[in-house]
Amino acid sequence: MSRVVKLAVIPGDGIGPEVVAEAEKVLEAATAASDVTFEKTPFSLGAGRFLDTGDTLTDDDLAAIARHDAILLGAVGGVPGDPRLKDANIERGLLLKLRFELDHYVNLRPSKLYPGAAGPLADPGDIDFVVVREGTEGPYVGNGGAIRRGTPQEVANETSVNTAFGVERVVRYAFALAERRRRKLTLVHKTNVLVHAGGMWKRIVDAVASEHPEVDVDYLHVDAATIFLVTNPSRFDVIVTDNLFGDILTDLAGAVTGGIGLAASGNINPDGAFPSMFEPVHGSAPDIAGTQKADPTAAILSVALLLDHLGLGDEAARVTRAVEDDIAARDATPRTTAQIGDAIAGRVRA
Amino acid sequence: MSRVVKLAVIPGDGIGPEVVAEAEKVLEAATAASDVTFEKTPFSLGAGRFLDTGDTLTDDDLAAIARHDAILLGAVGGVPGDPRLKDANIERGLLLKLRFELDHYVNLRPSKLYPGAAGPLADPGDIDFVVVREGTEGPYVGNGGAIRRGTPQEVANETSVNTAFGVERVVRYAFALAERRRRKLTLVHKTNVLVHAGGMWKRIVDAVASEHPEVDVDYLHVDAATIFLVTNPSRFDVIVTDNLFGDILTDLAGAVTGGIGLAASGNINPDGAFPSMFEPVHGSAPDIAGTQKADPTAAILSVALLLDHLGLGDEAARVTRAVEDDIAARDATPRTTAQIGDAIAGRVRA
Ligand SMILES: CC(C)[C@H](C(=O)O)[C@@H](O)C(=O)O
Ligand SMILES: CC(C)[C@H](C(=O)O)[C@@H](O)C(=O)O
Repeated sequence: MSRVVKLAVIPGDGIGPEVVAEAEKVLEAATAASDVTFEKTPFSLGAGRFLDTGDTLTDDDLAAIARHDAILLGAVGGVPGDPRLKDANIERGLLLKLRFELDHYVNLRPSKLYPGAAGPLADPGDIDFVVVREGTEGPYVGNGGAIRRGTPQEVANETSVNTAFGVERVVRYAFALAERRRRKLTLVHKTNVLVHAGGMWKRIVDAVASEHPEVDVDYLHVDAATIFLVTNPSRFDVIVTDNLFGDILTDLAGAVTGGIGLAASGNINPDGAFPSMFEPVHGSAPDIAGTQKADPTAAILSVALLLDHLGLGDEAARVTRAVEDDIAARDATPRTTAQIGDAIAGRVRA
Repeated sequence: MSRVVKLAVIPGDGIGPEVVAEAEKVLEAATAASDVTFEKTPFSLGAGRFLDTGDTLTDDDLAAIARHDAILLGAVGGVPGDPRLKDANIERGLLLKLRFELDHYVNLRPSKLYPGAAGPLADPGDIDFVVVREGTEGPYVGNGGAIRRGTPQEVANETSVNTAFGVERVVRYAFALAERRRRKLTLVHKTNVLVHAGGMWKRIVDAVASEHPEVDVDYLHVDAATIFLVTNPSRFDVIVTDNLFGDILTDLAGAVTGGIGLAASGNINPDGAFPSMFEPVHGSAPDIAGTQKADPTAAILSVALLLDHLGLGDEAARVTRAVEDDIAARDATPRTTAQIGDAIAGRVRA
């Protein structure tokens, strides 16, 4: 009996379509011999769509996307400073809206230094950790506002909203993940300053920790965590943190492990009530769009996360292994986006 | 005619007293031949004082400190997890209270990779930038709260408060600093998510920029800024940013330039209405307190910032040069805190 997975594909803007094309190639290669078929629906969304139609994400778009089993996204966002996008906020109106509406409360961002990948650290050690970033709360909720806008008396506030419900579910996910890994969990927050939100995160982590006596738990302030990411990144296994701190730490982690061109992510709704969404951590890089200079590896590794999420662990492992082998074999010879995709797809098939 | 500077000295906890002792030695050496005399008043504040008396910072303490011309602070904070400090928040009740009450709206944090200092980057390039961190607003204002604390229905909020008044004054300071340096200013924020606060910061930077046509201005999201701090830190000259982003970036910058043991800071009230406060970026490190293992360099470089602030530019330059020479001459031979202080003081006198 064959299984059909309905996949919504959002190539997006800039290099998005180029890297998604390679990710699709690899997905195809990884599942060709299996009994899973992907029924793909492309969605034209992003700055391009906004400029064409004025729409960012309509209710119909959202409803249609929600009827899928999973989502593959490239990157969204126009050319910085484009005057026609001045009043658009593609990030909030599209990317964050999808994460919030589809209740992607786990933003899963693995960081691994693959043999052969060149990072900026002189002595990186073994880097292999996962950031479990909360995806639906914190300073990302959009509960801000301004009064007297544009005057010398302007006051602009941003409110970070955090709930025990929201924190506990993501903390539980992180502990379960730590149990399947090296059993080390680090909470990152800023409890000495953000005493209310930080205090709640700390209390919930302590409470859930008591159900996981074999997981070694520690705590770092976000500022100290950035230090360790460059001086001793191998100390980390699972990091659990809020939406904003997770955003910052994962870009830094991406840089430390050889560049944001390799960093994959999953926006996951573990309950399965909504489709989860897989995307590279990098943005749309409009400056190199259409030049075949983008590295599709992050998008391809996002396919591995997608396969894993769908329960296709063997297929996921084959993609990851193919990427590992490709990275190990990289030399200074430049390759196009498609050449990298072809090479990895070839290794998956082999 | 001799000038008397009234200096409040807060050695604090942990390694604070040790590093402050060396900073005082160097201050003495740098000003011995000048017509400036420092009239020093020690203040016993920190976790130690709290444990002895139950006080963190009384109104009398604050009034007494405010009557000084400047403040030298070591580090405050007890042993993490000390049950007797469970309900104390020395950071908020002492350190942040001083910054807020004394209107230290510029938190000045230079980052320089001195020849001989070993940072974690394989190819750091020339690093020499200053972070101008806003010190009296943002998520640090303490405008948070929780309801249903400790229950599954808890909601914990933190509000970042930002005013045009507060942002404009620190942005003006940053532009003036950029004019005296390499004329490059980078605003760091997260305008695509924190649209109200970020939008105001952006508008104010753009407005002030029009008065400084010779300053080259750019903008980075905080996540992207952390990437550049490890891949291309020499791109920065002056960074202006909010309180929380500045906290994160300066710890990372400290690590990148050879460790938080070298990172100095000034909490500055440029108007002179209140005394400014100079302190190393590092904390009290209770684990090595009393062992003479702490590096007093950050405290000593904070003295250079103090001298500069007092208009004693030549004396400041002598301290900085002595530190530079000391760092260049460092080898693997371990030195005590006092030996490092003596060596630098000796170079200042020479
Ligand atoms: C584009 C932006 C809104 C987004 C975020 O801040 O989450 C991005 O930086 C990311 O990390 O996916
Ligand atoms: C101790 C803490 C409150 C403080 C801060 O967050 O500002 C420290 O990290 C710093 O950078 O001076």
